[in-house]
Amino acid sequence: MLIKNVTILTMNSNKDIIERGVVVTDNDKIIDIGGEELIDKYTAHEIVDGEEGILIPGFVNAHTHCAMIAFRSLGDDVPDRLKRYLFPLEKMLVDKELVSLGSKYGICEMALGGVTTFADMYYFEDEVAKSTKEIGLRGVLGETIVNFNAPDADEPYGGLEYCNWFIDKWKNDELVIPAVAPHAPYTNDTLYLQKAFKLAEDKDVPILMHIAEMDYETEKYMHEYNLTPVQYLNSIGVLNSRMVGAHMIHVNDEDLKILKEKEVGISHNIGANAKGAHGVAPAYKMYNMDLKIGLGTDGPMSGNTLDITTQMGLVAKVHKLYNNDRSIFTADQILEMATLGGARALNLDHKIGSIEVGKKADMVIVETKSINMQPIYDYYSVLVYSANPSNVSTVIVNGKVIVKDKTLLTQDYGVLIKEFNKIKDKVVEAASSL
Amino acid sequence: MLIKNVTILTMNSNKDIIERGVVVTDNDKIIDIGGEELIDKYTAHEIVDGEEGILIPGFVNAHTHCAMIAFRSLGDDVPDRLKRYLFPLEKMLVDKELVSLGSKYGICEMALGGVTTFADMYYFEDEVAKSTKEIGLRGVLGETIVNFNAPDADEPYGGLEYCNWFIDKWKNDELVIPAVAPHAPYTNDTLYLQKAFKLAEDKDVPILMHIAEMDYETEKYMHEYNLTPVQYLNSIGVLNSRMVGAHMIHVNDEDLKILKEKEVGISHNIGANAKGAHGVAPAYKMYNMDLKIGLGTDGPMSGNTLDITTQMGLVAKVHKLYNNDRSIFTADQILEMATLGGARALNLDHKIGSIEVGKKADMVIVETKSINMQPIYDYYSVLVYSANPSNVSTVIVNGKVIVKDKTLLTQDYGVLIKEFNKIKDKVVEAASSL
Repeated sequence: MLIKNVTILTMNSNKDIIERGVVVTDNDKIIDIGGEELIDKYTAHEIVDGEEGILIPGFVNAHTHCAMIAFRSLGDDVPDRLKRYLFPLEKMLVDKELVSLGSKYGICEMALGGVTTFADMYYFEDEVAKSTKEIGLRGVLGETIVNFNAPDADEPYGGLEYCNWFIDKWKNDELVIPAVAPHAPYTNDTLYLQKAFKLAEDKDVPILMHIAEMDYETEKYMHEYNLTPVQYLNSIGVLNSRMVGAHMIHVNDEDLKILKEKEVGISHNIGANAKGAHGVAPAYKMYNMDLKIGLGTDGPMSGNTLDITTQMGLVAKVHKLYNNDRSIFTADQILEMATLGGARALNLDHKIGSIEVGKKADMVIVETKSINMQPIYDYYSVLVYSANPSNVSTVIVNGKVIVKDKTLLTQDYGVLIKEFNKIKDKVVEAASSL
Repeated sequence: MLIKNVTILTMNSNKDIIERGVVVTDNDKIIDIGGEELIDKYTAHEIVDGEEGILIPGFVNAHTHCAMIAFRSLGDDVPDRLKRYLFPLEKMLVDKELVSLGSKYGICEMALGGVTTFADMYYFEDEVAKSTKEIGLRGVLGETIVNFNAPDADEPYGGLEYCNWFIDKWKNDELVIPAVAPHAPYTNDTLYLQKAFKLAEDKDVPILMHIAEMDYETEKYMHEYNLTPVQYLNSIGVLNSRMVGAHMIHVNDEDLKILKEKEVGISHNIGANAKGAHGVAPAYKMYNMDLKIGLGTDGPMSGNTLDITTQMGLVAKVHKLYNNDRSIFTADQILEMATLGGARALNLDHKIGSIEVGKKADMVIVETKSINMQPIYDYYSVLVYSANPSNVSTVIVNGKVIVKDKTLLTQDYGVLIKEFNKIKDKVVEAASSL
């Protein structure tokens, strides 16, 4: 496949930009990158004309619970939303069917918004894996482990056994990377956190966990151990490079040193954190310390939309505001976090995250014809400050075009919306009782 | 005209919502609102099928400089952007042609994003007025007055004379409301602020001004008079209900009382204020004090995009975060500011801002077919937390459909983009010397 008539933001270590660039792929890999001289050098089976769009590495959504799209727009401004709405609704309604349909819908939305790789934590994660394959995204998928009866486990910590089976089932898949996902420190006892860690070590898979998101979480560990959540997790030996912590809001300088030393991945979820009034993670410090930091949307009941473009704009605005400095977090740094940073957080930067020869062909074309996309004096600025997910026109994952002319080729989401209406009625009924 | 197959968010004082609603207009006015029984009651010349979209009052962009689209994406992350880039670029490049083309482009973008009324301050404002008429929006347009030679005035305060002429030219127009626009307190001497105020009084037009945006502005007036900018303006007698102050970031409780008592309009421009690291106006307090507060994008060199949908999402997130409370600023309150609030700030709420019988037919349909718009448990939530400007499908101003199926009927902006390239080359050359 040959992609032409694009400006390439490579996101390689020089952040090279190639205007009127060409990328050549062979099966799932990028084999050549250059100018228009490449057009005559190769005989391509498939030519993608980018129509003067911007070619970037696919976005990485480093933290979500995509099946929760079933509950999107419900209880957004409610104070104790987690315990009042979310947990009861999950208990009442989450089953295989909801996760299958919800994850399909959510993955369609990610694909259309240019997300080529996502990390997900939920129940019935096997359904999410099947949806991921069906639509053709790359997913790091973790089955949730909690200290109460989960929708897919009749006893506390039932997720551990599910994980065991789930990992074996998907371990050698090309697109699905199975993972272990203890929900959070405060919903897992020390012993089970260590068991989860051991499982991940034994199977050589990532661990996904919410870390330092809640103020009551910090209070708990300060009260019990005089340690921050990060310090507590470090003290019980579960932090290393396979850990991907979502949120990491309440972290101090000592915590940051630990995260650096242990090579822990971080998903910075600014939209959900702001909307939930949880606080602002020190993402600029993290970036400057060269921590493995990427961006995430969180689940659609927390962050609503599943695209990373919206998150980029928020990262810029919130951090400039909080740091009282319009010059920090430049647009190119933010696109870096949204692509290569997310890949690093998930330990996939050897495979994806930049447009470089030898890497997987996970790429996105953002069109520049829409009225919000002109004029262009700085490509990064246009992407971070002006673009919205509807500007994504072409999405390529693992060498395969899955979105073309803003249309998803691998699924008809109109059909999904109709199927969704059945679930919606149940949700409305259940929510009215809460 | 009869609009059917929509859910109407009326934004009337009860915030009535009508599912499967119908609105009937006659020329420029709304003459009936109800359910599907109205379909048989009227013989319509034109029927608009909303295809299950959400019908809302048109968005009001209460503060912008739309012609500055010519400079969008330039110098976004530069520290002293205003003095290093913006003022010099304006001096070198702003002429009739740039303002004509830039304002046309900007107004097209507003129309496509569902803005039906906007307030603008710039130079050569007569060109902005002509563009407004050509595209068919409603505009409160103020010629800028500053204490230096402006692009359209050979001497300081030349804008006053221009204003005089400009107001007389447009005073009786149906869509254009001419205004006086002293740039800011710190760029106008007391005497000239009073002259500008008197001109507005004599001609009975609005005054638009940047107020309490900059930290150095507060320092100046505290140093010189021991007064805040709002208190200083009040002390020189220029605050009353015709004043629309943009930004109003650095205001204290005494200032808020003055703004309430004098019925001053406020444009809250959260996106530009955050990106510029200027601070956060106490908008939630303003809203609860029932001040006349609407939302604005600021110019596209500050806020980049010109749609109000993006601003709504930012208002929710930033204020919840700053107030440490996810339950404040509910989605319906934010849509209220984005529509009726802006109308109140501009003293146009007797004419626009809600869908009510007798008001002007300024309305927008937001489609619900796109993947980010489902499921819908709460219409307001979907608009504030999920929608983006590309979801606007139909725009009606003064009873006339100007956007249909996401296509602008009154202008071909593809042609504008091409014309823009000439200006772009000049901008690149000029910017490279700064």
